[in-house]
Amino acid sequence: MYARPISDLIHLLTKLPTIGPKTAQRLVFYMINTPKEDIEELAAAMIALKEKMRECEVCHNLSEREKCVICEDNTRDESILCVVCTPQELAAIEKSMIFKGKYHVLGGALSPLEGIGPEKLNIGSLTARAKKGDIKEIILATSPTLAGEATALYLVKQLSGIPVKVTRPALGLPMGADLEYADEITLARAMEGRRNIGEARD
Amino acid sequence: MYARPISDLIHLLTKLPTIGPKTAQRLVFYMINTPKEDIEELAAAMIALKEKMRECEVCHNLSEREKCVICEDNTRDESILCVVCTPQELAAIEKSMIFKGKYHVLGGALSPLEGIGPEKLNIGSLTARAKKGDIKEIILATSPTLAGEATALYLVKQLSGIPVKVTRPALGLPMGADLEYADEITLARAMEGRRNIGEARD
Repeated sequence: MYARPISDLIHLLTKLPTIGPKTAQRLVFYMINTPKEDIEELAAAMIALKEKMRECEVCHNLSEREKCVICEDNTRDESILCVVCTPQELAAIEKSMIFKGKYHVLGGALSPLEGIGPEKLNIGSLTARAKKGDIKEIILATSPTLAGEATALYLVKQLSGIPVKVTRPALGLPMGADLEYADEITLARAMEGRRNIGEARD
Repeated sequence: MYARPISDLIHLLTKLPTIGPKTAQRLVFYMINTPKEDIEELAAAMIALKEKMRECEVCHNLSEREKCVICEDNTRDESILCVVCTPQELAAIEKSMIFKGKYHVLGGALSPLEGIGPEKLNIGSLTARAKKGDIKEIILATSPTLAGEATALYLVKQLSGIPVKVTRPALGLPMGADLEYADEITLARAMEGRRNIGEARD
């Protein structure tokens, strides 16, 4: 019913996550009424993304050069390494501005159902970095999900024998959460991990 | 925090409707993990959309050629014309498969607040088509909104004096609607427009 250039683009847009047929249609009609230069700029940015982005050879973060900006930053603490599954998780931690060490991106989490075994993750390069001896602490910042927990457990085993402290971020109530609706495990971990905030500190 | 190609594309994507910063970020990371050819195909489809689509010289619908597919279709009824504001509305009516006449796309609705006066709409070409004498009925299928009603009223005035029947789609309850929650105007119009469905037809 639509002309070919419209239906073609709608079809391709619906392949993207979060975009269904209605949104795709809306985007296409928006583009029809957008100056040609703007659409060319957007198309060029998509091509540039594919041409310019690669993996950092040290930490496997996304990077424009051989080493990513974080690995090249000498002001960051080399002795503490934060292990994450994806560059998105790295970005989330960077946004919190709490961590000033270096990173290691696994490239995913263990998931036998999806066929993601240890050989598909950047684990060899992690243990190699740990063995070099400059690192004092490795934070396993994988998500507290089934896959994330399994990945962390596997890494603990792989790192055993290497003289490095291995930690995991605290579990507890998220900011703004309603205690009444928190799940039991979160609540249990939050209670276990309770901290003294009064005057009688221990 | 993100590398330049990533932040550039996120920025450009958030200019599109329905796409906020979180969705843009998700789309970009999806694209990073998508084969380069697929992204090139999507970018090319966007460029093709801008290069190939233009206005039908008869009805102002979107078209790849001088005349759109509907205007070129000789099996459609030339004597009945459906006036809509946008190509999207035309597409919605086509989807219903109830209308087999021709169309006229105004290119918007009257809206003094947005600076859209009659001179910005394809009204001259509509009255010209009406005056040619082949058309028996013009359906003013603008939306039953403030702007759509105002546009329809304006068109009624412009078409007065031309020997053509001017109609408007029925107002009533939408399929699946709960009568209890229908607004008063819709309900009033639905009651006024009630139709005989029993045996005692008039």
